[in-house]
Amino acid sequence: MTSGFHSLRECLQLDEQDPLGSLRSLFDLPEGLIYLDGNSLGALPRAAPARLAQAISQEWGQGLIRSWNSAGWFDLPRRVGDKIARLIGAREGEVLAVDSTSVNLYKVLSAALQIARHDAPRRKVVLSERSNFPTDLYIAQSLCQQHEMELRLVDCSEIMQALGDDVAVLMLTHVNYRTGAMHDMTAVNDQAHRCGALCVWDLAHSAGAVELDLHAAQADFAVGCGYKYLNGGPGAPAFLWVHARHSDRFWQPLSGWWGHAQPFAFEPGYQPAQGIGRYQCGTQPMLSLIALDVGVDTVLAAEPLGGMAALRRKSLSLTRLFGQLLQHRLSGHGLSLVSPQDDVQRGSQISLTRAHGAYAIVQALIERGVVGDFRAGDGAEHPDILRFGVCPLYTRYVDIWHAVDALHQVMSSGVWRDAKYGQQHSVT
Amino acid sequence: MTSGFHSLRECLQLDEQDPLGSLRSLFDLPEGLIYLDGNSLGALPRAAPARLAQAISQEWGQGLIRSWNSAGWFDLPRRVGDKIARLIGAREGEVLAVDSTSVNLYKVLSAALQIARHDAPRRKVVLSERSNFPTDLYIAQSLCQQHEMELRLVDCSEIMQALGDDVAVLMLTHVNYRTGAMHDMTAVNDQAHRCGALCVWDLAHSAGAVELDLHAAQADFAVGCGYKYLNGGPGAPAFLWVHARHSDRFWQPLSGWWGHAQPFAFEPGYQPAQGIGRYQCGTQPMLSLIALDVGVDTVLAAEPLGGMAALRRKSLSLTRLFGQLLQHRLSGHGLSLVSPQDDVQRGSQISLTRAHGAYAIVQALIERGVVGDFRAGDGAEHPDILRFGVCPLYTRYVDIWHAVDALHQVMSSGVWRDAKYGQQHSVT
Repeated sequence: MTSGFHSLRECLQLDEQDPLGSLRSLFDLPEGLIYLDGNSLGALPRAAPARLAQAISQEWGQGLIRSWNSAGWFDLPRRVGDKIARLIGAREGEVLAVDSTSVNLYKVLSAALQIARHDAPRRKVVLSERSNFPTDLYIAQSLCQQHEMELRLVDCSEIMQALGDDVAVLMLTHVNYRTGAMHDMTAVNDQAHRCGALCVWDLAHSAGAVELDLHAAQADFAVGCGYKYLNGGPGAPAFLWVHARHSDRFWQPLSGWWGHAQPFAFEPGYQPAQGIGRYQCGTQPMLSLIALDVGVDTVLAAEPLGGMAALRRKSLSLTRLFGQLLQHRLSGHGLSLVSPQDDVQRGSQISLTRAHGAYAIVQALIERGVVGDFRAGDGAEHPDILRFGVCPLYTRYVDIWHAVDALHQVMSSGVWRDAKYGQQHSVT
Repeated sequence: MTSGFHSLRECLQLDEQDPLGSLRSLFDLPEGLIYLDGNSLGALPRAAPARLAQAISQEWGQGLIRSWNSAGWFDLPRRVGDKIARLIGAREGEVLAVDSTSVNLYKVLSAALQIARHDAPRRKVVLSERSNFPTDLYIAQSLCQQHEMELRLVDCSEIMQALGDDVAVLMLTHVNYRTGAMHDMTAVNDQAHRCGALCVWDLAHSAGAVELDLHAAQADFAVGCGYKYLNGGPGAPAFLWVHARHSDRFWQPLSGWWGHAQPFAFEPGYQPAQGIGRYQCGTQPMLSLIALDVGVDTVLAAEPLGGMAALRRKSLSLTRLFGQLLQHRLSGHGLSLVSPQDDVQRGSQISLTRAHGAYAIVQALIERGVVGDFRAGDGAEHPDILRFGVCPLYTRYVDIWHAVDALHQVMSSGVWRDAKYGQQHSVT
């Protein structure tokens, strides 16, 4: 792909030549819609309706309680976890697909704080990024209060120098939900470990979108989301990973019966399972977990075509195209690129900002069949964001072209100023 | 219904005269199966497959991210919670359908301990029942460790006298999962409050099965299960209730973004929502939550027919019949009734025990199309249990007759001694 301007015809050609182009047929996408919000809710895998219909009518309806064994519900959190492991550079038996990202973060951050308190009791700081996704900060705030520690928030550029000898745990989201900026996980872990801190990573905007190798990067703990690039459906269970060197050291506090060494012995005293098993808590929502299983399979379907490396190449190619088209067609409309221009620093999204009107512009685009989303800012430091997520499994080059074309129409016509595009809630 | 022995013909007549008999048609039950395990996994509502197919193909597939608003996903935890409130004597806006029972217990017990620590700092004991469902004890064990408190376990008969001035919180399951014995919630709350303790109730084996009035009973906190008598499907989200006098006093520690006063303001600092809202944490598994919504509707369908009072009358009538048939046909086979004979003390299940062979007998029954389940004991004090749950929405009098008949065949033929009926895991 050249660095120049791309015509619609060139984009059509890029799609035709795309070695991953066939993967789009794994999804059931609304006719005519350009969906650039897979970083918020991934598209429906074509295999999901039939698989879920079978789970509902046969496994639940006919098998009833027997399906816990016969349909494999019992170990589904581990089996889906093992599949996710292949996407994030973890090993078999190290990942669980359970609960929500927030609940999982509570578990792993609790464990990290207990380890830190034991190994380095003088370290009293959890370090994070001020623009981290809020739920991560809220969970950290709760745990810091519980452990009498300080949650210290710094800007992205200050993290490395903030890694002092008082830091117990560094907690970061790998790809920022607003800006799409991606940390160099290996470099950060390396610096944090040299300083004596543990690293907890939130992979919500990474898993299924960018290459990850948790072991090579020497990470300590990670959590991630099932309903974004893993295409697990609305509110799909999340996942968590704990490095084997940590997993048996302490309990995590959500010590429900599924994390017991022998859950069906029904003993009154808690004995945590060895390994990742102790990070289970209660019974998991099987229908949603089965949908996640199907969603993860769509990402694994890329393995024969080059896997995450190939998906990442295409993702970058798509976001690069987006940037080029913006530069060519949208200059002079007050839109600024917030997501990094440098490939190695960019996740799988394009983020723009504008002094005024970001929300209305997103609404006007949605009305024209281009679905991105809006993330409110809090002033100059964190301005309002127009977010366009790219999912290399189903986003086409022509989708990018049409999205920028629609944005051009919205801006040049001024239609976004129409009062009907008011402010309202949205969901990540 | 008389107290004498019932023939199959009499049972058929009871079904014909049953004012709730039509409710069975709300369920899709396997042909020929006698399902007495709805206390472990409720049956499939006939409306569920179509409703879920619509949620999957239309709301997820076509609506995509827009369905958070347009399909009402956003407030579904509250809307399902409001429906459950009608079944448990709670008020609108007081109940949430979220997460698992274990996770919810962690939230409410944490809140109760914070309140107790503030109001009565010298109280250092969480009192519970030794035969409580283990996950409740494990969660309490974790929180007691965190709060430097003692988890004190006593037998059921010792609870009232154990309510001393050192007890901060009394945590009980309303209907015991093994024995089916039911606490007098009003009397227990009354005694606990006079002693100065708060009461946390687990309604896992109560909601949808027995009459509940949390307000009349002056309860403080409650959690319950969605996949048993609420028919929400495998691993359906659980629910929680907090009395309004407590809900705004402290945070619960799982302070995820959904519990924030303004989740979509994306502020870095946590500000809990007023009321029950702060008991939300992360994004909920929508497909499983939608299934729960359908399941709860099956229980609400009894409202025009007398609601929970009518369901409770039928449930007692069924378990009473079970007991009578057992007495008449199964004496001399070493089976003893564990569930209470007194109606007011019995939940919606019949529990039996036998010195040997309980597991094999349950397996032999399952092979003959009668599905109950087995719960392992730990010796003389807590013997092995054969469990038969009765769901008044779909269990018929003839089902009870056939179940006892099959049990009679299994016992009198001695077929249960066959080596093929070995020991294995089961799921509540």
